[in-house]
Amino acid sequence: MAKDFTTREQDYSKWYNELVVRADLAESSDVRGCMVIKPHGYAIWENMQSQLDKMFKQTGHSNAYFPLFIPKSYLSKEADHVEGFAKEAAVVTHYRLKNDEDGKGVVVDPEAKLEEELIVRPTSETIIWNSYRKWIQSYRDLPIKLNQWANVVRWEMRTRLFLRTAEFLWQEGHTAHATKDEAIEEAEQMLEVYAKFAEKYMAIPVVKGIKTESERFAGALETYCIEALMQDGKALQAGTSHFLGQNFAKAFDVKYASKEGKEEYVWATSWGVSTRLMGALIMTHSDDNGLVIPPKLAPIHVAIVPIYKNDEQFEAISKKAKEIKEKLEDKGFIVRFDDRDTHKPGWKFAEYEFKGVPTRIAIGPKDMEKGTVELARRDTLEKQFVPMDEVADIIPGLLDEIQENLFDRAKKFRDENTTEVDNWEDFKKAIKKGGFVSAHWDGTAETENKIKESTKATIRCIPLNNKKEDGKCVFSGNPSKERVLFAKAY
Amino acid sequence: MAKDFTTREQDYSKWYNELVVRADLAESSDVRGCMVIKPHGYAIWENMQSQLDKMFKQTGHSNAYFPLFIPKSYLSKEADHVEGFAKEAAVVTHYRLKNDEDGKGVVVDPEAKLEEELIVRPTSETIIWNSYRKWIQSYRDLPIKLNQWANVVRWEMRTRLFLRTAEFLWQEGHTAHATKDEAIEEAEQMLEVYAKFAEKYMAIPVVKGIKTESERFAGALETYCIEALMQDGKALQAGTSHFLGQNFAKAFDVKYASKEGKEEYVWATSWGVSTRLMGALIMTHSDDNGLVIPPKLAPIHVAIVPIYKNDEQFEAISKKAKEIKEKLEDKGFIVRFDDRDTHKPGWKFAEYEFKGVPTRIAIGPKDMEKGTVELARRDTLEKQFVPMDEVADIIPGLLDEIQENLFDRAKKFRDENTTEVDNWEDFKKAIKKGGFVSAHWDGTAETENKIKESTKATIRCIPLNNKKEDGKCVFSGNPSKERVLFAKAY
Repeated sequence: MAKDFTTREQDYSKWYNELVVRADLAESSDVRGCMVIKPHGYAIWENMQSQLDKMFKQTGHSNAYFPLFIPKSYLSKEADHVEGFAKEAAVVTHYRLKNDEDGKGVVVDPEAKLEEELIVRPTSETIIWNSYRKWIQSYRDLPIKLNQWANVVRWEMRTRLFLRTAEFLWQEGHTAHATKDEAIEEAEQMLEVYAKFAEKYMAIPVVKGIKTESERFAGALETYCIEALMQDGKALQAGTSHFLGQNFAKAFDVKYASKEGKEEYVWATSWGVSTRLMGALIMTHSDDNGLVIPPKLAPIHVAIVPIYKNDEQFEAISKKAKEIKEKLEDKGFIVRFDDRDTHKPGWKFAEYEFKGVPTRIAIGPKDMEKGTVELARRDTLEKQFVPMDEVADIIPGLLDEIQENLFDRAKKFRDENTTEVDNWEDFKKAIKKGGFVSAHWDGTAETENKIKESTKATIRCIPLNNKKEDGKCVFSGNPSKERVLFAKAY
Repeated sequence: MAKDFTTREQDYSKWYNELVVRADLAESSDVRGCMVIKPHGYAIWENMQSQLDKMFKQTGHSNAYFPLFIPKSYLSKEADHVEGFAKEAAVVTHYRLKNDEDGKGVVVDPEAKLEEELIVRPTSETIIWNSYRKWIQSYRDLPIKLNQWANVVRWEMRTRLFLRTAEFLWQEGHTAHATKDEAIEEAEQMLEVYAKFAEKYMAIPVVKGIKTESERFAGALETYCIEALMQDGKALQAGTSHFLGQNFAKAFDVKYASKEGKEEYVWATSWGVSTRLMGALIMTHSDDNGLVIPPKLAPIHVAIVPIYKNDEQFEAISKKAKEIKEKLEDKGFIVRFDDRDTHKPGWKFAEYEFKGVPTRIAIGPKDMEKGTVELARRDTLEKQFVPMDEVADIIPGLLDEIQENLFDRAKKFRDENTTEVDNWEDFKKAIKKGGFVSAHWDGTAETENKIKESTKATIRCIPLNNKKEDGKCVFSGNPSKERVLFAKAY
């Protein structure tokens, strides 16, 4: 299965592209920049969705759905927002096709031109705040805490499966609050939710921080983010939560009457994660043998492969396999007993390994004699023989161990690839080597830009709970009060 | 809450529109024909999704995701299909906006014109079969049984919330099979899934049948459907499952090598239900007091309202309410204890009634003395006093009873409003009165059309398992072998 498979060492970028396609996660479509998410990839995304959705509901949010299309003029109502999204907007201009003259195809019907063009949503602040104006009159109507699972479109010129696609799937939370403090608290709470999800479920260690002004979301006063480090030393922004201040309330004239009877603009947040997380998941854990999926997000936890030469053997093994399957299912695990006779056991081993199934059991005639099974774990590729009657009791603990090991391994890598530097030469060297670089910065966009031009590194975030420390900017030498985190990034 | 609420008798159509908005299910947006699905409406849709998704997976389907956009030329590849969808296609022609000359707004950037226009998917057969060509080589690759949860756009000119909207949410199953029989079996199986879902979960009795040629899906050889009857005597198509033959395989050149090594075109089905089901749910069960939701799809099963005059009373009632809540939650029900002090009990009663919460408990000081609670059911509006310590044991059975009662009530209505007629005068009278009309038809599209022109009634379906019966077409007098079901329809 994994033959002719590029290694990370050979070409990390090619390794990723090949892995996504060969593990049946996704592929490019004929529509520029749009991907097809295949069943194996979508099943992982569904598990992410399901867990995130639960966490959103636990923190008091409800789901709703707003239109795909945004009138062009809405986008312009918030100055930074239109600046951020106009350049990559897919525009609907007509609402009908008609037969062309030779009758063989269809052409756009010029008579069916829209009065106002519609933008396929790149994000939904504008259409949602236009609704909130109708929903909010008094402080009694607040807070509103909604989330939407949706597809969005940003016409990116350079696309890569999961990491940057013209259409992607995401969730976008949009909340409205009576006070600034409450909105900030909400934005921070959702960052915590994302961080918890990333670490506990995706097994990806993240740095929580805030973005510099130039890296903020278009229309936000503060953008909180979680940043992860991929195996090639590049950073990946894995989720953002924005404190939007009163920008959208002002743009869409959303006011409420306070308890004291005063008219006030409403305070806002928005926050989102997308199918980009699939890219982060893949690049954090997978290896030269294919995909590695943390057990908590795996569509299948255990694959059972029978090895047999005749029907009699098959039946005896089958019976045992089904017993093990049932025991594991009773504990809530998803088990696949692969009794297909169209593929050989070796092919199946390679298949489950490549597709990242966390554990795999093999049962052959010798195992039947000895009362054992071969139990393989995907993360370390280790195999062991364990008693047949105990394997269903061993696996839950093993899956926990795998989950933990993946996180620990990723954290060790992240920590080993985070460098503190104090001068420009060391900074350049560290950036070239890859990883997070913790350095002093003078706080100006000018310096930030020059560093970016010179090294391609951006400030990933100013870590939350940063310790205050006097220092000098690695680039300008001007005074600085804290270190920030630089890296080249996806 | 229900004051100034139009009754069904007064104006059924107005009643529906008001109900959808006032029960916080959905509302129109500023984008023509596109709706906002509000949290209460979306929560019901989520419950539908979750149950359907489970049933799809139980029948061996996986989820996947295909692009929102379809190249214009794809649509033309299947002749009937383009005929069916070209007239209502939302067309993306550009991929960028730019600042207009006065710098205050944005305009479409003429330089960012797409080489080939993209259609926002009205349904995904074409883009999916274009992928299937790459996925299918041999019989070993078959069957493929995928489902997609997605938004689709059909630029309808006359729209109504949930029933007919330019953008709607749906699921679309797309399967590929080696043989004709297997594909037909699949299409029929999915019809059964839909019928079971409609009857068991939505409490809507449905007639299973096939469409006449003129009512078939654009590109199908056979369209199976379930038809429901609304309270105003109009029919509503609640789900369709299509046997597509080899039409899309031929249009997209999808062939497989059979076991015998022959090249064959692949056989296809597609099947879908949409947010239109929300309309069916509302119109089947709701009444002049507002929404009625079958317990199996209700976002909240039980609302508990405390009645108190002082803190001491509130605390005692609260304690009991929380005990009841916990007991019910342990049984898997969703309970809302509404302890808001911003609204009076009477307001809350009206609110839960209007929003269709199946059961409601009230606890006041007198109940505390007597050890009782008032238990109200939404379907019949009956109230009873039951022992406080038993209410959590009573409710599960009551919810089952409500679910059953809703189905029985709807079935009784449907049966009472299904008329067999044998001549044209009776036919016209019956159609005018409303309901399903079972009549003989000569099997020609010409007659079907003339009946439609004359009475606005269409053939909803040729019921499956129809009993064969010699008769004469009510319109032409020509011989007929079975009755078909006519009605005016949504």
